[in-house]
Amino acid sequence: MLRDRFFSKKQTELTIAQIIKITNCKVSNEVDLSKMVKNVATLKNADKDDLSFINAGQYLENFTISNAGFCFAQAKFKEKAPAEMIILEHENPYFAYSQIVAEFYQENISDFGEKLIHKTAKIGKNCKIAPNAYIGKNVEIGENCVIGPNSSILDGCVIGDNCMINANVVISFCVMKSGCIIHNGAKIGQDGFGFAHDKGVNHKIIQIGIVEIGNDVEIGANCCIDRGAIENTIICDGVKIDNLNQIAHNVVIGQGTVMAGCGAIAGSAEIGKFVQIGGSVGIGGHIKIGDGAKIAGMSGVMRDVEPMQVVGGAPALPIRLWHKLNAKLIKMANS
Amino acid sequence: MLRDRFFSKKQTELTIAQIIKITNCKVSNEVDLSKMVKNVATLKNADKDDLSFINAGQYLENFTISNAGFCFAQAKFKEKAPAEMIILEHENPYFAYSQIVAEFYQENISDFGEKLIHKTAKIGKNCKIAPNAYIGKNVEIGENCVIGPNSSILDGCVIGDNCMINANVVISFCVMKSGCIIHNGAKIGQDGFGFAHDKGVNHKIIQIGIVEIGNDVEIGANCCIDRGAIENTIICDGVKIDNLNQIAHNVVIGQGTVMAGCGAIAGSAEIGKFVQIGGSVGIGGHIKIGDGAKIAGMSGVMRDVEPMQVVGGAPALPIRLWHKLNAKLIKMANS
Amino acid sequence: MLRDRFFSKKQTELTIAQIIKITNCKVSNEVDLSKMVKNVATLKNADKDDLSFINAGQYLENFTISNAGFCFAQAKFKEKAPAEMIILEHENPYFAYSQIVAEFYQENISDFGEKLIHKTAKIGKNCKIAPNAYIGKNVEIGENCVIGPNSSILDGCVIGDNCMINANVVISFCVMKSGCIIHNGAKIGQDGFGFAHDKGVNHKIIQIGIVEIGNDVEIGANCCIDRGAIENTIICDGVKIDNLNQIAHNVVIGQGTVMAGCGAIAGSAEIGKFVQIGGSVGIGGHIKIGDGAKIAGMSGVMRDVEPMQVVGGAPALPIRLWHKLNAKLIKMANS
Repeated sequence: MLRDRFFSKKQTELTIAQIIKITNCKVSNEVDLSKMVKNVATLKNADKDDLSFINAGQYLENFTISNAGFCFAQAKFKEKAPAEMIILEHENPYFAYSQIVAEFYQENISDFGEKLIHKTAKIGKNCKIAPNAYIGKNVEIGENCVIGPNSSILDGCVIGDNCMINANVVISFCVMKSGCIIHNGAKIGQDGFGFAHDKGVNHKIIQIGIVEIGNDVEIGANCCIDRGAIENTIICDGVKIDNLNQIAHNVVIGQGTVMAGCGAIAGSAEIGKFVQIGGSVGIGGHIKIGDGAKIAGMSGVMRDVEPMQVVGGAPALPIRLWHKLNAKLIKMANS
Repeated sequence: MLRDRFFSKKQTELTIAQIIKITNCKVSNEVDLSKMVKNVATLKNADKDDLSFINAGQYLENFTISNAGFCFAQAKFKEKAPAEMIILEHENPYFAYSQIVAEFYQENISDFGEKLIHKTAKIGKNCKIAPNAYIGKNVEIGENCVIGPNSSILDGCVIGDNCMINANVVISFCVMKSGCIIHNGAKIGQDGFGFAHDKGVNHKIIQIGIVEIGNDVEIGANCCIDRGAIENTIICDGVKIDNLNQIAHNVVIGQGTVMAGCGAIAGSAEIGKFVQIGGSVGIGGHIKIGDGAKIAGMSGVMRDVEPMQVVGGAPALPIRLWHKLNAKLIKMANS
Repeated sequence: MLRDRFFSKKQTELTIAQIIKITNCKVSNEVDLSKMVKNVATLKNADKDDLSFINAGQYLENFTISNAGFCFAQAKFKEKAPAEMIILEHENPYFAYSQIVAEFYQENISDFGEKLIHKTAKIGKNCKIAPNAYIGKNVEIGENCVIGPNSSILDGCVIGDNCMINANVVISFCVMKSGCIIHNGAKIGQDGFGFAHDKGVNHKIIQIGIVEIGNDVEIGANCCIDRGAIENTIICDGVKIDNLNQIAHNVVIGQGTVMAGCGAIAGSAEIGKFVQIGGSVGIGGHIKIGDGAKIAGMSGVMRDVEPMQVVGGAPALPIRLWHKLNAKLIKMANS
């Protein structure tokens, strides 16, 4: 977890009593209210000092085997909790989580300073920095990099060697390795889209993850890659992403995967290695795409795809089935 | 109508005789050619001094009950005009309108000045303005706002208190209330897409509306929200819009509506309150979506949606019907 | 070909022997290995001194009538080559091409200099340049142009008279005529998306074409128009493109064509004159759309479209057939 570098910093720890006060959750009588909750985490990665939440039945499997010490949950899930887990009962666990993550992590707003290149920024040998580039606090840039005009590298970001950051790019909450090319106008590291609805108000979920980018990654013009909600969004080595793609929070894209333009990968989807994704493809949240799979252009992927499988259509079907269906539909239209 | 603040300013008024000279339209013999036309307006909001136009049969209902004093229309619509309306007959009413709006409103090009922050700009207490931000003439920014690096706030815009304008954002022709978050690269207030085709040329329709943004609105990275054509584009309180969405001119989005990424709402669509719009959704021009409706991801909405209705597919159907259809199609493909 | 202005400059010429050394390709025994290859070109436009490649069977027609003096090809295509063509046999012709184009053309990285406006830039009379605009080496801007704040006009670009370049735009590798309007955040001239996969690595294809833009073109906010791979991407006079559209490398869009928002035109597609393209449309690579055709919103065009033809759906069908099909599908769902 690279979260704490110069990005979102944990501000506090909270007792169960404090959490009850903030969220109005309930605990069973035998719980020691002075017990300390040290951080928030996903069900999958939480440890005994961490607080997690279960938002919907689809996460039940992760819930029943989670090591989280504490978990916001609706009453109906109580019986399925692991023995060691303390349940913080709440009708709207996601909203309760939104209140607690906002206590742990305050939003981190730059002080900017007066100069385009902050005095704490470290810039490697032989870099070319365009006159109008902004480089924030504690940024580290390797050797032989180019930072184009009107680009903004915000506080705490790390960029490896031999990276080409073109014009009007924004990079924030991001650690990037070497040999990457980021095209004009790409936006990396802004908040993911997360809101807990409660009584007519959409409450923002503070995002605390970052974006990890491997070696030799290429990101197209005007793409958006959001920072992770709790864990990180991860783009592995050799991934190539064409223009105007949206990569939502917590997405993982495996090594060597190639994605044509104008698509969208929704939150927490896991894309394997050497996957080929056509243009204007939509991939649903939490979907898993196996290694070497191929997704035809304009597909809408709403179920997991097996390794090496080829799919097409919206909703996406195995490609042969999709071709058969199209042929039948044309026949039907003509009849 | 906030149009006249420091945005598009009306330059002139025109007699009917002048309008005939410019557009070659025809009026009936009894019309007094010295009568003054004071402004342009939509059929819905025009008053007795205003000139409007009817472009296609779909606007007939608005036309027959319009209070517009003057209206460009094809001959075939003449008989259906309200008694008080003076018809300016023209084969291509939209093109005629494009010529007249260009007389009334000239495009307003900034003089920029030499400094990044224009001397007439008013910036509230406790704002953090990044070194590379551009703030234009007569801009007003409230208290406790952040303006990120390489962002451009163009002439006449108003931003309330506690707004976070991130990096490389452009805001123009916009009045925004308090507590808003605008993510990296969002573009707010550029011209809507309007052209009148005449004899092989696409004539630009001068856009004179603005964008009104309520309180606590969040706009995703690289989104585009166009200024209104005649009236305003309106984003109500508490609306949350994910990355890479396109909101066309004159769209109205009701309070608390949430829209996932990569969608498009075409011109003059009206989205109700607390609507949930999935990712990569397209909504057609002039479509009405009722309060509390839900639109599944990747849908194409080509008809109005009732309040609380749930729809999916392209063209979108009631969600049960869509699921039934998908099941039948898979069966058909396999048969 | 405007390629050599101040854009990608050819660095060298190569003998066949050198090309064999770099790519491990094979030639037949009678070939003179000292023969000079002077440039790279497409099958369609190559001349006797040029090297081309055939990547897949779909290009066979262009291959058999090509004037290319040299061509990378798999063994199976050898027999179909024109008599004068020297075949450089390679299992992965696209990868071999990627290695050679990288020899001919090195990537051209700006030296920036220290000032926002490079001393070699020529700016015409009566231009308004916003304080934060970046204007690179050898740029030429005509008369009466506006360059908005935080926009970047990169090395060698040419802009005609009376152009309005709004805020946070990037223009690179581009020659633009007069009367154009480029909206906020549009990105013109970045690399197209081209990779040759070889042994687990996606090798970047150096892009050497530019973007040619005619007179009176309007490009929407946050659009992306890629430079050509070998030849140019061409946007003809009077074309109007709405926000968030992606125009891939080598696309040609004919005069007066209008394209609504959020669409994608894949590489090398040829769009005719006065075509009307609805919103959120996808058009496949190498597709041809005839003059005056109309594409309904949200269509996916996977076959050529005849002049004046109207199509809809994904995959797109003649519009009547599509409407018939939709009616039948709704009936089927309800049955």
